[in-house]
Amino acid sequence: MSKPSLVSSNKIFGGEQRVYSHESSEVGCTMKFGVFLPAEALAGTKLPVVIWLSGLTCTEQNFITKAGAQRVAADLKLIIVNPDTSPRGLNIEGEDDSYDFGSGAGFYVDATTDKWKKNYRMYSYVTKEFINLINDNFPTIPNKKSIFGHSMGGHGALILALKNPGMFCSVSAFAPISNPIQCPWGKKCFGGYLGEDQGAWKAYDATELVKSYDGPPLDILVDQGTADNFLSEKQLLPEHLIEACKSNNVPCVLRMQEGYDHSYYFMASFMEDHLKHHAKHLHQ
Amino acid sequence: MSKPSLVSSNKIFGGEQRVYSHESSEVGCTMKFGVFLPAEALAGTKLPVVIWLSGLTCTEQNFITKAGAQRVAADLKLIIVNPDTSPRGLNIEGEDDSYDFGSGAGFYVDATTDKWKKNYRMYSYVTKEFINLINDNFPTIPNKKSIFGHSMGGHGALILALKNPGMFCSVSAFAPISNPIQCPWGKKCFGGYLGEDQGAWKAYDATELVKSYDGPPLDILVDQGTADNFLSEKQLLPEHLIEACKSNNVPCVLRMQEGYDHSYYFMASFMEDHLKHHAKHLHQ
Repeated sequence: MSKPSLVSSNKIFGGEQRVYSHESSEVGCTMKFGVFLPAEALAGTKLPVVIWLSGLTCTEQNFITKAGAQRVAADLKLIIVNPDTSPRGLNIEGEDDSYDFGSGAGFYVDATTDKWKKNYRMYSYVTKEFINLINDNFPTIPNKKSIFGHSMGGHGALILALKNPGMFCSVSAFAPISNPIQCPWGKKCFGGYLGEDQGAWKAYDATELVKSYDGPPLDILVDQGTADNFLSEKQLLPEHLIEACKSNNVPCVLRMQEGYDHSYYFMASFMEDHLKHHAKHLHQ
Repeated sequence: MSKPSLVSSNKIFGGEQRVYSHESSEVGCTMKFGVFLPAEALAGTKLPVVIWLSGLTCTEQNFITKAGAQRVAADLKLIIVNPDTSPRGLNIEGEDDSYDFGSGAGFYVDATTDKWKKNYRMYSYVTKEFINLINDNFPTIPNKKSIFGHSMGGHGALILALKNPGMFCSVSAFAPISNPIQCPWGKKCFGGYLGEDQGAWKAYDATELVKSYDGPPLDILVDQGTADNFLSEKQLLPEHLIEACKSNNVPCVLRMQEGYDHSYYFMASFMEDHLKHHAKHLHQ
């Protein structure tokens, strides 16, 4: 595996927010990602890792500039890593035509349709190549990792945790796309990446997956703003996730946050709660 | 005075980060600005105000998305307002030609040269029109205000406080352009806006102004990263400011922050310290 190349490094809260690029064999292009290393990690101490997955249209930049996570991660002694949301610059016809499909919209699945299956492998990219890359190049404790994300990335965090019992110590999400097979965003992407057989879609749907989850206890925290326009447009459907969790006795706390929307202003407000949720499990 | 129009509002840390636009008579164009209102202000309680002035190239967006100030301001019960850095869209020949002159680079002076004097009046805009607009439209305590800023905006904060004794309860700056008449950025802008008579430049130079300051005690806090490339390029010259402060017994704390650069990552790291510095004076 080739070493990642440093793109930028900025000191923040005693640690360093870095951006790297690397040549991904899984998705077949150069991928950027962010890494926040607390001061202790810079000094060589091995720390737990929290993976952040971003939403539609995001690159690695949105989270690292807007979420305010570094202050909390420095305090809680957590490394945070965040991959990009899709392969980039592949010159596949249509890849840049819409904000909610193709570039910036990998949806954390492994595509099976002819046009996309070679490169749109964000599920395998994150669960295998990216995690190995992080463990090989940074002072991590490999079995101490958690995952969280926003919107499409909240979906990603939930399905990665549910499909890989024991891989993550905890999972959380901000305004996740909780039941993609039932919402316009999910139908568009799953149709494009996975084809018309809706049976295959269920393997990447958190609400469906949680119904049959039987791994180690998974502590799920979800925050959802009540003023989120995508909630009223039924893109997110957290109530479906909660019902499914109840049906299978999977503990999930859904907090409806009065007046908050879908933006990073919402996420920044509750970032500390989410990282403390993960720290509780990672520092055991 | 016309009422400002709401452009956007996002709930954050229990308060609201809003953006407004208004028709400015001072600079002769539509100007946007940011306002963070803590929950108490939304409920009608009058609170102190801290004005933030941004640096070269910034609009009202940079500070409100990247600085992480709302968390602290919510906690300390402070309103934060931040104007734009220049007039916009005036169709003055050359206004958009460089990042460090014209649009995004008003330098908080009142221009006197023919081409710029009608509109490039950011000094009067902030000290008169903008402050009145804020007091008239938001629940402020008019005599409880402080000012801070970054780089060009750090220069702006210092000169506004030094030229208007008693107007601000405290002042602070991140990596301010401390002696603009001695650095390339300042020479370019002062030459363009104020003409070739360098005597006139001194009226907008913090290092020069502090030498003759004789107003009420002014508590100045300056943070400067040691890895700031503009420090080594001698654009900032904080050591000149400190010398001048000493010569006139004006208290100024300059903290050299090891390894930090000129970015918002640096500012976010010390935002809490600066707002606590202001709160100490504003909540007396």
